[in-house]
Amino acid sequence: MENFQKNETLRMETFSDGVFAIDITLLTFQLKAPSLKVATSNYNLGHALLQQWPNYIAYFISFTTIFIIWLNHHRMYNVIRRSDARFMFYNGLLLLLVSIVPFTTSLIADYLNTPAHELSAAIYMLLFAGISGTLLRMWIYATHNYQLLKRPAVDVRIVSIRTSLLISTVTYTVVAGLSFLVPFLSFLVGLVMVVYLARLKYHRDKVV
Amino acid sequence: MENFQKNETLRMETFSDGVFAIDITLLTFQLKAPSLKVATSNYNLGHALLQQWPNYIAYFISFTTIFIIWLNHHRMYNVIRRSDARFMFYNGLLLLLVSIVPFTTSLIADYLNTPAHELSAAIYMLLFAGISGTLLRMWIYATHNYQLLKRPAVDVRIVSIRTSLLISTVTYTVVAGLSFLVPFLSFLVGLVMVVYLARLKYHRDKVV
Amino acid sequence: MENFQKNETLRMETFSDGVFAIDITLLTFQLKAPSLKVATSNYNLGHALLQQWPNYIAYFISFTTIFIIWLNHHRMYNVIRRSDARFMFYNGLLLLLVSIVPFTTSLIADYLNTPAHELSAAIYMLLFAGISGTLLRMWIYATHNYQLLKRPAVDVRIVSIRTSLLISTVTYTVVAGLSFLVPFLSFLVGLVMVVYLARLKYHRDKVV
Amino acid sequence: MENFQKNETLRMETFSDGVFAIDITLLTFQLKAPSLKVATSNYNLGHALLQQWPNYIAYFISFTTIFIIWLNHHRMYNVIRRSDARFMFYNGLLLLLVSIVPFTTSLIADYLNTPAHELSAAIYMLLFAGISGTLLRMWIYATHNYQLLKRPAVDVRIVSIRTSLLISTVTYTVVAGLSFLVPFLSFLVGLVMVVYLARLKYHRDKVV
Repeated sequence: MENFQKNETLRMETFSDGVFAIDITLLTFQLKAPSLKVATSNYNLGHALLQQWPNYIAYFISFTTIFIIWLNHHRMYNVIRRSDARFMFYNGLLLLLVSIVPFTTSLIADYLNTPAHELSAAIYMLLFAGISGTLLRMWIYATHNYQLLKRPAVDVRIVSIRTSLLISTVTYTVVAGLSFLVPFLSFLVGLVMVVYLARLKYHRDKVV
Repeated sequence: MENFQKNETLRMETFSDGVFAIDITLLTFQLKAPSLKVATSNYNLGHALLQQWPNYIAYFISFTTIFIIWLNHHRMYNVIRRSDARFMFYNGLLLLLVSIVPFTTSLIADYLNTPAHELSAAIYMLLFAGISGTLLRMWIYATHNYQLLKRPAVDVRIVSIRTSLLISTVTYTVVAGLSFLVPFLSFLVGLVMVVYLARLKYHRDKVV
Repeated sequence: MENFQKNETLRMETFSDGVFAIDITLLTFQLKAPSLKVATSNYNLGHALLQQWPNYIAYFISFTTIFIIWLNHHRMYNVIRRSDARFMFYNGLLLLLVSIVPFTTSLIADYLNTPAHELSAAIYMLLFAGISGTLLRMWIYATHNYQLLKRPAVDVRIVSIRTSLLISTVTYTVVAGLSFLVPFLSFLVGLVMVVYLARLKYHRDKVV
Repeated sequence: MENFQKNETLRMETFSDGVFAIDITLLTFQLKAPSLKVATSNYNLGHALLQQWPNYIAYFISFTTIFIIWLNHHRMYNVIRRSDARFMFYNGLLLLLVSIVPFTTSLIADYLNTPAHELSAAIYMLLFAGISGTLLRMWIYATHNYQLLKRPAVDVRIVSIRTSLLISTVTYTVVAGLSFLVPFLSFLVGLVMVVYLARLKYHRDKVV
């Protein structure tokens, strides 16, 4: 039975990896060759490409954020022995939210130069808040009474990870609200959070 | 030879997982940033986003349904020792049907606000009936004379799974017909079936 | 060193599986919800859906053909011990050709109702001929002097597989030419070849 | 701990493989059925298809280049024992750059027949320079003090690989500049570099 559950956990992890890999690659559709109608020169094309800068920034932030979320997801699975029905439900919710990132990315890129950029930035941040919050929920559930842990609890940074994921969730949420006041704050915080989330360590061993 | 077949079964399972993961992610294309022609305000964008609600519901139901079908597919493979040519044929049919889900999803989302929503809902439900029916066919074939079972037959819930898959297949089919009478019934039943199919257990062990 | 090569072969096989799975799923884009401009009824939508029949047939043939090619690819790898640089080159060529299938599929679906259906059918068949021919080339190379075989040569159906792949390659090529004379022959032969290629056995063991 | 890091390295490798496989397959969207408005003949369609030749060349070069980069990536991982945080960062950067290839490919294909082909060719080459340069950076970091090597350093072609990747990076960069002077040089060099990069051997064993 124990073996069975390991198998289940592994397959869920592999399936999740596949969804992460596809989502991160689908962001590519965000980048489109500009469709110039007049006969173009190098100058015209260069100008049109530069005007697409919101797409490049949105692409960069979304790509790095999904990458970092994947990293955290797989570090979490590294300290988890088995999953149960409820944990798989949370995991499915995480995949559903990550799969929406290409949508909010195109939203923020399309409307960055319009008066509606505030709402699109708020939605963009809110989705990241939801993703971060789901990771937090998974962590609290897995470490509660150490029920799903693989490694000895003393090796696992239970509290510090909980605090870190709480901080990132709150930050994303607050910035979503602030998007209506401070333009571009969402981009800046999005980049900072990538660095922040990249550094989380789930256990005490000195591994990546 | 036994080893060989295990290898075959494993590869088919991995390949199927890949197709499931890609299909579930391709649903993302269902969600598109609204293309507003006039200079927009937050209010305009919010309004346009809210009007896309059929897309969100269709996305949610299709995502969770494919996820649950994947879960059932992989629970079934957990109790199966080997596959043969005919089982692989059924599996290929399952993948073909699952790959059509993004199509019927866009159909129901595009036509939900039109008088043609009845037909699109019927097609949507009918495809799920076909998928559920193929799972049922695979189960009947695999458990017939216990020919493809890995675990001792007494451990496997042969009859209860057969009944459950029969119920879900019939329900989807009936609701497909009722779509012409009761609008939105398909959405409601689609959600209920996700919960129902998520709870199926293929063997007696207390695992996920 | 031997271990190393096994590893190489395995990774190439996994990578190929990924490309096959993605290609087969990208065919989904062939199926699009009809874009009706007038307020529609169930009848209108049903009519528009029926008019898309070339898409459904093309989708079905392409899906089953890629599935069968994947099956043959992986049966071939089952009897191969290791790959070398040249075999990997052939494998890369196979992936390149398979990745073009979504393109020729949309070509034949878009032009089936036009006078240009002959050319599109010819191109469709010609690509399958190229894919089948590449599989044949891989087989001839791998079995030449038994250099890449894993199993004892006597267990491997070297000659019969070579003959079968030669037959399928020639058939696809001939039908490509006949497309200009006999309309729809390509669809018919495409379906027949799926059944034919599904039955090839690469070794004498009674496995799938 | 050592086991743990192997696990990390393996998962990063698998995730990277997924991204490579998806990127190489997404290039397919580069190939579109021409949309002819008038009732067409075989001749019209053939003519329209031939006029898309820049798409075919760009598709071919991008496909083979990503394939060769994947090959080099995985040969590099074959001689690496473990990865650390910084190596994973470089790997993430590599994936980000490879994911942009479909964008620059559509850029060069769309503008090849326009006066802007020079700029698009320069950007196309520059991205390949960035990818090759990132591989070089990964190699320098991994082999510095032999810190990340799996195999005995004497078995690894540390210097010759460094030189080769330096040559390819410089070549791509120089050709990016020359694109403004010599049209089509980028296509020619792109093809030559595929052959050049396909031949790199990362260790002394006679394996693929």
